[in-house]
Amino acid sequence: MNKKKIINDPVYGFISIPSVLVYDLISHPYFQRLRYIKQLGMTHLVYPGALHTRFHHALGAMHLMGLAIEVLRGKGHSISAAEEEAASIAILLHDIGHGPFSHALEHTLMQGVHHEQVSMCLMKQLNETFNGKLATAIDIFTGQYPKQFLHQLISGQLDLDRMDYLNRDSFFTGVSEGVISFDRIIKMFNIAGDALVIEEKGIYSIEKFLIARRLMYWQVYLHKTVIAGEQMLINTLRRAKELASGGSRLFAAPALAHFLENQVGKTEFFESPGHLEKFVQLDDQDIHAAIKVWASHEDPVLSALCRMLTRRELFKVEITGTAPDQERVADLVQRSSAVFGISPAEAGYFVYTNTVENRAYNAAIENVNILMKNNAVIDIAKASDLSNLQSLDRTVTKHILAYPRGI
Amino acid sequence: MNKKKIINDPVYGFISIPSVLVYDLISHPYFQRLRYIKQLGMTHLVYPGALHTRFHHALGAMHLMGLAIEVLRGKGHSISAAEEEAASIAILLHDIGHGPFSHALEHTLMQGVHHEQVSMCLMKQLNETFNGKLATAIDIFTGQYPKQFLHQLISGQLDLDRMDYLNRDSFFTGVSEGVISFDRIIKMFNIAGDALVIEEKGIYSIEKFLIARRLMYWQVYLHKTVIAGEQMLINTLRRAKELASGGSRLFAAPALAHFLENQVGKTEFFESPGHLEKFVQLDDQDIHAAIKVWASHEDPVLSALCRMLTRRELFKVEITGTAPDQERVADLVQRSSAVFGISPAEAGYFVYTNTVENRAYNAAIENVNILMKNNAVIDIAKASDLSNLQSLDRTVTKHILAYPRGI
Amino acid sequence: MNKKKIINDPVYGFISIPSVLVYDLISHPYFQRLRYIKQLGMTHLVYPGALHTRFHHALGAMHLMGLAIEVLRGKGHSISAAEEEAASIAILLHDIGHGPFSHALEHTLMQGVHHEQVSMCLMKQLNETFNGKLATAIDIFTGQYPKQFLHQLISGQLDLDRMDYLNRDSFFTGVSEGVISFDRIIKMFNIAGDALVIEEKGIYSIEKFLIARRLMYWQVYLHKTVIAGEQMLINTLRRAKELASGGSRLFAAPALAHFLENQVGKTEFFESPGHLEKFVQLDDQDIHAAIKVWASHEDPVLSALCRMLTRRELFKVEITGTAPDQERVADLVQRSSAVFGISPAEAGYFVYTNTVENRAYNAAIENVNILMKNNAVIDIAKASDLSNLQSLDRTVTKHILAYPRGI
Amino acid sequence: MNKKKIINDPVYGFISIPSVLVYDLISHPYFQRLRYIKQLGMTHLVYPGALHTRFHHALGAMHLMGLAIEVLRGKGHSISAAEEEAASIAILLHDIGHGPFSHALEHTLMQGVHHEQVSMCLMKQLNETFNGKLATAIDIFTGQYPKQFLHQLISGQLDLDRMDYLNRDSFFTGVSEGVISFDRIIKMFNIAGDALVIEEKGIYSIEKFLIARRLMYWQVYLHKTVIAGEQMLINTLRRAKELASGGSRLFAAPALAHFLENQVGKTEFFESPGHLEKFVQLDDQDIHAAIKVWASHEDPVLSALCRMLTRRELFKVEITGTAPDQERVADLVQRSSAVFGISPAEAGYFVYTNTVENRAYNAAIENVNILMKNNAVIDIAKASDLSNLQSLDRTVTKHILAYPRGI
Repeated sequence: MNKKKIINDPVYGFISIPSVLVYDLISHPYFQRLRYIKQLGMTHLVYPGALHTRFHHALGAMHLMGLAIEVLRGKGHSISAAEEEAASIAILLHDIGHGPFSHALEHTLMQGVHHEQVSMCLMKQLNETFNGKLATAIDIFTGQYPKQFLHQLISGQLDLDRMDYLNRDSFFTGVSEGVISFDRIIKMFNIAGDALVIEEKGIYSIEKFLIARRLMYWQVYLHKTVIAGEQMLINTLRRAKELASGGSRLFAAPALAHFLENQVGKTEFFESPGHLEKFVQLDDQDIHAAIKVWASHEDPVLSALCRMLTRRELFKVEITGTAPDQERVADLVQRSSAVFGISPAEAGYFVYTNTVENRAYNAAIENVNILMKNNAVIDIAKASDLSNLQSLDRTVTKHILAYPRGI
Repeated sequence: MNKKKIINDPVYGFISIPSVLVYDLISHPYFQRLRYIKQLGMTHLVYPGALHTRFHHALGAMHLMGLAIEVLRGKGHSISAAEEEAASIAILLHDIGHGPFSHALEHTLMQGVHHEQVSMCLMKQLNETFNGKLATAIDIFTGQYPKQFLHQLISGQLDLDRMDYLNRDSFFTGVSEGVISFDRIIKMFNIAGDALVIEEKGIYSIEKFLIARRLMYWQVYLHKTVIAGEQMLINTLRRAKELASGGSRLFAAPALAHFLENQVGKTEFFESPGHLEKFVQLDDQDIHAAIKVWASHEDPVLSALCRMLTRRELFKVEITGTAPDQERVADLVQRSSAVFGISPAEAGYFVYTNTVENRAYNAAIENVNILMKNNAVIDIAKASDLSNLQSLDRTVTKHILAYPRGI
Repeated sequence: MNKKKIINDPVYGFISIPSVLVYDLISHPYFQRLRYIKQLGMTHLVYPGALHTRFHHALGAMHLMGLAIEVLRGKGHSISAAEEEAASIAILLHDIGHGPFSHALEHTLMQGVHHEQVSMCLMKQLNETFNGKLATAIDIFTGQYPKQFLHQLISGQLDLDRMDYLNRDSFFTGVSEGVISFDRIIKMFNIAGDALVIEEKGIYSIEKFLIARRLMYWQVYLHKTVIAGEQMLINTLRRAKELASGGSRLFAAPALAHFLENQVGKTEFFESPGHLEKFVQLDDQDIHAAIKVWASHEDPVLSALCRMLTRRELFKVEITGTAPDQERVADLVQRSSAVFGISPAEAGYFVYTNTVENRAYNAAIENVNILMKNNAVIDIAKASDLSNLQSLDRTVTKHILAYPRGI
Repeated sequence: MNKKKIINDPVYGFISIPSVLVYDLISHPYFQRLRYIKQLGMTHLVYPGALHTRFHHALGAMHLMGLAIEVLRGKGHSISAAEEEAASIAILLHDIGHGPFSHALEHTLMQGVHHEQVSMCLMKQLNETFNGKLATAIDIFTGQYPKQFLHQLISGQLDLDRMDYLNRDSFFTGVSEGVISFDRIIKMFNIAGDALVIEEKGIYSIEKFLIARRLMYWQVYLHKTVIAGEQMLINTLRRAKELASGGSRLFAAPALAHFLENQVGKTEFFESPGHLEKFVQLDDQDIHAAIKVWASHEDPVLSALCRMLTRRELFKVEITGTAPDQERVADLVQRSSAVFGISPAEAGYFVYTNTVENRAYNAAIENVNILMKNNAVIDIAKASDLSNLQSLDRTVTKHILAYPRGI
């Protein structure tokens, strides 16, 4: 079979699969599973086009890796064919450990297990399956490979992961504010010492990239209704686990039932192989299929949450600069309790408070280094005397209050 | 709540919801269900971006209806606000009767029930729910409303349904060959007598539209691997029903179990309300979630099909102009029987023959009428002396042979 | 003749001409002349696609006016058909007074005559030609019409002039950093009191608009090489006028010769009709055609400048934060004098210093008013607690030093 | 100076200049001249965006050459760096011999001199200037280089010249019907024997390409009003030459005057160097600048034509399948003669008949060869049993009748 395939991608036109090994990794069930895990979870409830998956994102990031390496080679930096394949594999697999609904359920199905750790674990398994051919990819992924810039292309301020997800998320949501000039930014890539830098004339593109990322946070990633949907999903799973651990019977595919019925923490997950085996059978659709059934469950909390989710009767969310008034929260809890006929403790599944941060700028800007025309390498915040970048380097924290509409 | 919402759409930018009634219809669970029914079924296995849903398509077609009515009014044709809302509703709901995986499973879950009939049935139910407010929409949908052109905008050679799906399918697959100049075509709409016509200077755009549709058929809708995936899906459900009717226990959500365990024909479906109630709880995800579980089922036919589907180990498909050689088919059946350890009869789930037609041109062209500059209305095939349109007006039939790879 | 034309526009798809009067204005020689005045002057020497004209820009801005009025009407604001036509005309003609190479030669061909004054003058002439039908358009243009928001749509922080030129300039240069979500911004337009405001949820789009504008300034409008080309053009015309006033014979179309041979100040221009009559016969091509001939002129200054311009041997430009060192400038003058065999005074045509400002932010932000959900109207800088907008509200001044390469 | 520049192109994003030699050729005055010769002549009078130049087209075609060579190398065909540079140069310079308004004036300024011959002549001069470094490029251009497929990439049924101009013309006119999937077509390039072929799965893209080309002919290249403008331009120049040869004084830049005052045929042009020297100083702007002045000329024919051109009062054009009635033509001549106060002979400048062909299909289809999966190479018309390509392989001839409006 011809494994040098070309895949159509509405974002970039075509994505070429660079090698047989990459083709075989893409064909592996671990990777195929990502076809059924949406990149943006519940976001499609607000932006109906946002159904793109981690599968497509991983391919897109790999495509950008190919462009970046071509640019760097064109500037005289030596990158071997083996290094190129390893870097392509490392970015292809960087998110392979994500579970259903990605970030949203990361801490609900299991406790204390980060998707990065699962990715690492799956990459090691694949390395065994493929007779050690992923060793360099793993070294690049973990930052142990000598050429640090390869790691930075996968995980850094301007990595190709971000580059692709901003592109792809703005494309599929239709939020054109998030469009970035990824091709121009990549053309400005260079290496100084062993580190990835941006050439001076790319400063404005970087600034635009940072602004676009911030706007995507507020307009998409932290959109009120998206937060409402995700929080309802989390509360639904929390309630289901609570009921299951209390002995209730709940419709669920076996792999999902496993995580409903067992408390799986970090130690168990990584030490007892059965958990991972179940985990890789899960995707978004198991959750959704279960929720539809649970909408008729006898538990009023679970059924109400599921009914609201399937009908898209989402919580009202208020985002404010200061914490919500405690009396108001208590009042909402009480009214929920009355409306749904549940205890005040159970009403906590309906009224919740939280904080969100615009994570786009956590500890950020100082790491974007600019290669000036005089070959000096300086921080973008200093390179850009025009710039208002300093003001972006702070975390904006917002308070969330969510509760059912009409109570 | 403000119900005059704007929805982001990567295809058209923004879609405005034109009225409160339309907003309420979109919010109804029958319509929300379409969020989970992909427009193109298994096509995403070939074109990973093709995850767009019937929900989004229906909104898009409604958006085009708004544009078309604006154009027609601009040319002096009177269309009342009530007619506009009715036409918008009619196109919004035209596909509401689709079940999971749309066309692919239309004749597998039930027998002899067409999705158009289900759409009609659901529209009538909604009409009751909304106190008769959908009466005009239903008349337009069924062609009983006096202004025939409104019906043609929903169902005709150049209807807005096709216009949107060609746009949307080519957008999300990334197959740019399918791009059509929908805005130009709509600007060329006019009415002659009571019929929708195209102004003369739109002839080339129409020709391009017809060509684009044909190309989409061969490159996307009838793509070999898409056919393979759909046929495997159909065979899987057929086998599951066979097993269920034989008393086997199969993991399935209750609504899916209902259709596995019961033979539901047209009469039962429409006369006994329980079937419809179950039907509207189904979507793509129930099927997929079940298939993953069935991959471990004890039946070798079912488990093999499901394993191949989840791993994307799809049948090899040969498309030829003449029927496949019967000896070769018999040989493939025998080898499948041996490889999978099943009876030759069961091997029929793995080796199948079929025919497909490029349906784009069934009985088509004579219905596109052109309004010439001298106000004559003539058939496009005659209007376009340049044109090779006649040659498009025939059905191309191809023979399919599918079988597992590596047998 | 059908005057309800549709014009293809790669930026917006189609532009409709809204009325017969508008069609007739577009057909008038004053407006047709704009076909030959590039929107961005010498910018095509850097961005070869940037050949779009003031003609196309004016049509585009008129198109956006139509969209804006549709949005405002949809929100319940009354705008009559006559007002719509007047606003369309006002924006169509807002730049009709531009001469060849627009801003670059504005103060070289004549002295102290601003293009806005010429626009006003031509609009009054057209008003006479069209029997007073432009009276309301003129009132809107000058801000004397009661509905102030109509004037703001033509000239204000978020006017449709800027909206179109940012769109169009980024489209034709290919500088995707300048892309703005004009459709989203326009959908957020509203009126409070009598003033144009932006609805709260449009804040991020506005912020992106302001950033995009700034980036376009530095990447396009104030691009070093563009500045070099424009300055060489200005110096060329200055020298030509100097020679012409000294009695030299210079090849030139009669209308151009008129401005080379006469010093025309504001008073003469507006009081003596002959000047305007000549002015409206000028466009970019007269200048370019003359420059090619002057490249063989006997004057070494003129011929050198023209030779360099036609061969695109443009000055080297240095942009710095502080004024260039005077000794260095003196040295460059001396070397130019030697290389070209001219006097030090003449060398001033080759070595020049200047300052440029990023004009995008002059006195800007306080004028963008946001309509909050609670109906309060507040300044964007205050509405956006997330925002770093304050830092944009300052003028950045840069020093320019330009001189021939290789001296 | 860094000569490895990147040029922004709205069509492809970025165009890289592949070598120093190419940079120097682009900088040469012969090539810079193409900045002022529009690709589509008078077409901007109908499609105002169509101001793109031969300069930009030549760069775009060179860009596609780079993509094509990358694809062919990726399929194992050996193409040396020197061959790549030569092919890039050959396509960059393929149209360097075009004069003002390209095809329109090709046979008016001079007699019997084809632009291909001028291109060849200029390439030879450049080869001398650059010390023989263009020898291979010239061999590829003339088809004498052994690897025939390189020549086919420059001049053949699917050459990169056509690929770019269809892309670019549809982009800048805004006629989306002309959009082709150039990237997909190029990815389907392969070599069989020594000839360029298309892989089987590219058949539909090729068919779409041929259709798009046909539509562009009728909608753009042979648009009535474009024909009117070009014919008026030709007649204007013919009249100017007639007057000049009769001793009339006409405003014109010296290089233009040279061709007005002298009859230059093929022999003179290529044997006497003075003609070419003048020719390379001409561009569109000399013609336009002169026409504006001639609008006040004392000759009623010349001034009427020029006045109409500058005011865009273009001839009415009728396109018919059969030759226009001779009596009608005679009547139009007589009325023109009366209206303009000129002799019937002179009225021939106002009323003309002609034929145009859709040149897209001259002798076309048999040359597109398809590489089937079984490695056979067959004609596309046979490869595509679905196809209606045969019907495209004929020349459509139309009759033109043009005359002033309102006579």
